Amino acid sequence: MSEFAPTARTEVRRLPQRAVYDREAVYRILDEGLVCHIGFVAEGNPVVIPTGYGRKGDTVYLHGSAASRMLRTLGKGVNVCVTVTLFDGLVLARSAFHHSVNYRSVVIFGRATLVEDREGKLDALRVFTEHVTPGRWQEVRPPSDKELQATTVLALPLQEVSAKVRTGPPVDDEEDYALPVWAGVLPLSLTPGLPVADERLPAGTEVPEYVRRYDRKRP
Amino acid sequence: MSEFAPTARTEVRRLPQRAVYDREAVYRILDEGLVCHIGFVAEGNPVVIPTGYGRKGDTVYLHGSAASRMLRTLGKGVNVCVTVTLFDGLVLARSAFHHSVNYRSVVIFGRATLVEDREGKLDALRVFTEHVTPGRWQEVRPPSDKELQATTVLALPLQEVSAKVRTGPPVDDEEDYALPVWAGVLPLSLTPGLPVADERLPAGTEVPEYVRRYDRKRP
Repeated sequence: MSEFAPTARTEVRRLPQRAVYDREAVYRILDEGLVCHIGFVAEGNPVVIPTGYGRKGDTVYLHGSAASRMLRTLGKGVNVCVTVTLFDGLVLARSAFHHSVNYRSVVIFGRATLVEDREGKLDALRVFTEHVTPGRWQEVRPPSDKELQATTVLALPLQEVSAKVRTGPPVDDEEDYALPVWAGVLPLSLTPGLPVADERLPAGTEVPEYVRRYDRKRP
Repeated sequence: MSEFAPTARTEVRRLPQRAVYDREAVYRILDEGLVCHIGFVAEGNPVVIPTGYGRKGDTVYLHGSAASRMLRTLGKGVNVCVTVTLFDGLVLARSAFHHSVNYRSVVIFGRATLVEDREGKLDALRVFTEHVTPGRWQEVRPPSDKELQATTVLALPLQEVSAKVRTGPPVDDEEDYALPVWAGVLPLSLTPGLPVADERLPAGTEVPEYVRRYDRKRP
């Protein structure tokens, strides 16, 4: 079983029983998530911005407009912290104090580098698109050279990484189990609704299978 | 219409048409969200940690164990950035380049202060609990003095705040509308599953209405 080695920054000190360093477990969380929150320091202040991402092996790809201040800052190789959180459910205990949530989160520390060669950029955008909507890349018009130039792509290595996971029922104080209060877990998950076709779509264009059966859960 | 005044840190420069400073709109996003991502600087490095929160008026409450390093750090009044993101859907365009997501996010900059008086702490924990599960507070055993002492509560003022929102269909290049590619929006939302009763719950304990009809959507 391959694990990420804990470092001073990634060792989980608070509730260490929830810590996960197993590589496959980290991959599964990253592969199920849609949004990461990127933290960086700008003029001494912390800034946290949500954005999409994709993963291939031990690399996380970020991308955005070449005009983005954030991407220009990150491309300089500053320290970043990228966090992905999956919310799995409310944990309703008999006491207010023991309420909790079931979740899975991954925290990555590191420095991103610019992906500048054409093939590398194209591959990263394919990884990104397939991460969000598996099956999409082969159907859509690929990026033109002009679009590629207008896109900044960053690669962040998965080196300093940890995950934290809580699962299962509430844990109450022994004397509280006698209280007449409903307790348990309310599962929550990011669930697709019905696809909304674009108004300019020719009548009869079928909704692709990968949209109809969209599901973030990963095996 | 009351608005948060943009500052150098909160003025949205990238895609400013997506910026929202309206107070009620910011409240609605915060009230629908369950998780925030707190960013702070620790030994020069950015750190981003997911956690719960609650809102009352122009105050966001955070809480956690008094033993938590993060809360001890934040309680010192360091600069923080707290970001809440709601993921609303995939925006599937005809070209890879114009893919996007529908989302609503709020970014708050500021410094948190410790809530130290007993009544203030209790009220913040009530706000927190009711934020996550409206209706829950009045049913559960309230915090004991010992539990209150073991809990750190922080208050973050809503002063430097902005929101960013994308809604609606894909926007494709004019010549791409002729491509035979399905395009549109796949809505996604955090949806409850069936409640899972705790194994030690007495048989016949009814699932409360506020759990059975749990819904994050806010009017």
